[in-house]
Amino acid sequence: MYEVLHKKISELVTITNEEFEFCKTLFIPKKLRKKQFLLQDGDICKYTTFVEKGTLRSYTVNEKGSEHILHFAMEGWWIADLSSFLTSEPSPFNIDAIEDSELLLITLPSWELLLDKIPVLERYFRILIQNNLIATQNRLMGTLSLSAEMKYERLLNTFPECLQRVPQHMIASYLGITRETLSRIRKQRLSKK
Amino acid sequence: MYEVLHKKISELVTITNEEFEFCKTLFIPKKLRKKQFLLQDGDICKYTTFVEKGTLRSYTVNEKGSEHILHFAMEGWWIADLSSFLTSEPSPFNIDAIEDSELLLITLPSWELLLDKIPVLERYFRILIQNNLIATQNRLMGTLSLSAEMKYERLLNTFPECLQRVPQHMIASYLGITRETLSRIRKQRLSKK
Repeated sequence: MYEVLHKKISELVTITNEEFEFCKTLFIPKKLRKKQFLLQDGDICKYTTFVEKGTLRSYTVNEKGSEHILHFAMEGWWIADLSSFLTSEPSPFNIDAIEDSELLLITLPSWELLLDKIPVLERYFRILIQNNLIATQNRLMGTLSLSAEMKYERLLNTFPECLQRVPQHMIASYLGITRETLSRIRKQRLSKK
Repeated sequence: MYEVLHKKISELVTITNEEFEFCKTLFIPKKLRKKQFLLQDGDICKYTTFVEKGTLRSYTVNEKGSEHILHFAMEGWWIADLSSFLTSEPSPFNIDAIEDSELLLITLPSWELLLDKIPVLERYFRILIQNNLIATQNRLMGTLSLSAEMKYERLLNTFPECLQRVPQHMIASYLGITRETLSRIRKQRLSKK
């Protein structure tokens, strides 16, 4: 259950077996079936979650019922509403499973204990959050300045697995375009091949 | 010259005088007059920069000449193209001064040395980047889901100083709306008072 977590941490920093054994004691394993919720908007995000297997997404739903997707998280990724997790304020986000998933949950007090006891994990999370910030900034700049075609092209280049595993209407929501536009772009690409 | 940096670090972590004296040796002080560039697109972002005084912005310019603003940075904030800084790839961003500014620049090797020698700064940067990530995620979700009025309202609530110090056309570019729309929103707000 902890193989992917161990692999991912070891890619960025050096952690001893003893440290990782301690690390494991702080996580709560959880299985989620497809369509089950990890977080519903209005609730406090009590955990930050590591995905050992499967795919989750975080999204908001506006008053008209439109979904806006912030994140997909597959094996080896973390997912949470970071703001709600850190402040204990109610979250505007939903997090649910797109596939049957195996997760490792950690509460804020346990996460803080982890960072105190294993300082090298400060570096792990700093690098992780840094990469996430760069990706989010790129996406924001793309949203402000790129055409629908270019946004799709960029997603295809940076995150090809996503396009195979995530339903089309969620890809459209993630890109901030309509399903019709996405469908047109895909047809145009196929006819070019 | 280092007062704001010392204050800002001390707000998040405990740093000894000896550690901060070492820290100071790694920065390059620089003054920038209004409209001078710190980074021009196509160049590598060689520094991450702390603003002791003044205001900078980072932005892209598309082929039609439109500016898209990623960031404003005032006293106590950091600014860089993080991706170019970490990878030494050419940057698509410009960074210039909106006001006369006093800056502290640090190169990647010096920054890495700093983190090695003063591990508590791993925590400082982790928290800083984490807060930046939350703000960027909020802005991205706002761009996808909020009306122009609501985006302006949110900026007013979270970053009121920005509206006093930054020219209106830059605020419009930051919000991803036209100058005319911003002008209309401001008039409507005034007439409501």
